[in-house]
Amino acid sequence: MEFLSVRQTEDIAYITLENIKEFNTLTLQVLREMDQLLKEIGTKREVKVVVIEGSERVFCAGHSLKEIEAKNETEVLALFRECSTMMRTLREIPQIVISKVRSAAVAAGCQLVAASDLAVASDVAKFSTPGINSGLFCSTPAVFLSRNIGRKKAVELLFTGNFMSAQEALLHGLVNKVVPVEELDAETEKLAKDITKQSLNIIEIGKRQFYQQINMEDFQALNYSTEVISLNSKHPDAQEGIRAFIEKRKPVWD
Amino acid sequence: MEFLSVRQTEDIAYITLENIKEFNTLTLQVLREMDQLLKEIGTKREVKVVVIEGSERVFCAGHSLKEIEAKNETEVLALFRECSTMMRTLREIPQIVISKVRSAAVAAGCQLVAASDLAVASDVAKFSTPGINSGLFCSTPAVFLSRNIGRKKAVELLFTGNFMSAQEALLHGLVNKVVPVEELDAETEKLAKDITKQSLNIIEIGKRQFYQQINMEDFQALNYSTEVISLNSKHPDAQEGIRAFIEKRKPVWD
Amino acid sequence: MEFLSVRQTEDIAYITLENIKEFNTLTLQVLREMDQLLKEIGTKREVKVVVIEGSERVFCAGHSLKEIEAKNETEVLALFRECSTMMRTLREIPQIVISKVRSAAVAAGCQLVAASDLAVASDVAKFSTPGINSGLFCSTPAVFLSRNIGRKKAVELLFTGNFMSAQEALLHGLVNKVVPVEELDAETEKLAKDITKQSLNIIEIGKRQFYQQINMEDFQALNYSTEVISLNSKHPDAQEGIRAFIEKRKPVWD
Repeated sequence: MEFLSVRQTEDIAYITLENIKEFNTLTLQVLREMDQLLKEIGTKREVKVVVIEGSERVFCAGHSLKEIEAKNETEVLALFRECSTMMRTLREIPQIVISKVRSAAVAAGCQLVAASDLAVASDVAKFSTPGINSGLFCSTPAVFLSRNIGRKKAVELLFTGNFMSAQEALLHGLVNKVVPVEELDAETEKLAKDITKQSLNIIEIGKRQFYQQINMEDFQALNYSTEVISLNSKHPDAQEGIRAFIEKRKPVWD
Repeated sequence: MEFLSVRQTEDIAYITLENIKEFNTLTLQVLREMDQLLKEIGTKREVKVVVIEGSERVFCAGHSLKEIEAKNETEVLALFRECSTMMRTLREIPQIVISKVRSAAVAAGCQLVAASDLAVASDVAKFSTPGINSGLFCSTPAVFLSRNIGRKKAVELLFTGNFMSAQEALLHGLVNKVVPVEELDAETEKLAKDITKQSLNIIEIGKRQFYQQINMEDFQALNYSTEVISLNSKHPDAQEGIRAFIEKRKPVWD
Repeated sequence: MEFLSVRQTEDIAYITLENIKEFNTLTLQVLREMDQLLKEIGTKREVKVVVIEGSERVFCAGHSLKEIEAKNETEVLALFRECSTMMRTLREIPQIVISKVRSAAVAAGCQLVAASDLAVASDVAKFSTPGINSGLFCSTPAVFLSRNIGRKKAVELLFTGNFMSAQEALLHGLVNKVVPVEELDAETEKLAKDITKQSLNIIEIGKRQFYQQINMEDFQALNYSTEVISLNSKHPDAQEGIRAFIEKRKPVWD
């Protein structure tokens, strides 16, 4: 890993974007490193939560316009496909992914926040999708942004290129919490620890179910989910969990 | 009815969960009673609004983990299918269903609130989907929860199991109003009465149309709704309603 | 144009509903005029933003119940189909459409606000879908309303017929900004000018992409958008925009 670093505490992996002098842009290489890293974490199953963090100055500035300019059409498509692949990996690993946003999350950086399962922002964080200012509409960021916040606000961000504050991001549903900068690490860890107490097997079942059902018609979703929860109820981790609940003790999972 | 009671005022039916010593859990029997009661109300057409209420201590604690533990896989599936059936009945009756939440709405109790057409909460009410704490992810509650509130907040509730306050529930769209406990009855009745002034025939047309169109592509929805409203315009209750509007009087609907 | 007026500044077209003595109702003729006007603006490509405004007393009162009463079923269907056609035109023109709401937006008037790409409201503006009060459920307004605001609030408005204040409309996502009446013109123009600095070609690409992807499953949307952004990157306006970004200057388009 050249542009990412990873550190691991008990049940949490922290991935840090480290290409600071390039504003943590998601170059082809960074996207490949991130995809590889997430796949490894997903396969190893050593942690239950992944936290993605940027630097003090910028969370992530999105794609590199320089890199896009230097590539021909086929190469540009390959770049954006690599980005989709990484977003898909983020969705498919069993772990919950939290974006920890200290500063600016821009374009595909904003997309990364929107595509994450959870997000915590500092009170000086800010969010924008300003591709249109350079004639390159943020089409791919639009996908998860418009699935996190309302249509009207999404259109405003996408067509003006203006920033949205952390407080607005909270109000519109892009982030889960906004905290003072000095509490960002602790508050993110606190949220992560509310999840690391769960069974990874059940987190995996839940994450897959949540995103599967969300695109279905209401009762198609309910019927599908009825099958999932019935099967889940006889999983060894559920049997232990339910027994622990009845016996008023903490469950012991592997 | 062993675990439910029902009382009826002029145009409103109140269904009360009465299995207090079991925290108003939705056991198989309660689900069957609720389904039967809703179907009767739907068929009789004597009221225009159904209010579902719990007790002072708990609105509804969801499914009984004891019951789930005691059942084999086939029986568990039958239990959850009964729950889906009841939610579908709630959707299909002509009446508007309001959840009146005084205290805690947990797991399938939270699902009941989310699946209702409207909800009013007291300021001490709280909401959670904590199944994952016992290894049983709240897959079925996730369906309507994620169709009421944003994805990020839904993921937070589902994977941490933490409570959301009434104020947060209002902000995120799970409930329509939050009022002091002592005003809960009056405010819920006020909301119900804003609906009982309408024609039940037209409420029925509107409820069916609203939920049909909500899962369609934008203009598929608009084309479908164009047919519905055109037909609606020649319904006797619309003809009386429009005439009353023009004549500046109240419509008379038997 | 008998019931609409249009004035054009540099990059913005203002369409004013002028049928004040009929509360700016969307009669068949008004709908046809609006559709024709939007199509002309879309074809001429002289402006980048369209602002729709009403009058001091009312933004738009929706359809005329008198007109509906006087028509037979076939004619009513033709009326509502004309309304759908206009909403579709609003969606398909390359320009961003902003509703500027000074006063009351009712029924199909509320639908017009919801169907617009952006909306700015004065602090005395108010919104309702009261068709049900006259036995004519607001089925068509329900479509875009329920795609702007949450289900619970949409049901409340549609089945009670009650007004929602401008502040509530902001909170629930129906409008982008609420400003004092005396600042409404200036603030709307400011928002419009944040968009007129963009290339119309790219606005067109973005608007089409945004609404296409919004009805797709998550990764179907992402794959589609990956194709769109890749193609967009080699558009002459993107090439100029990206070069300008790298050279730290303003892009020069057309």
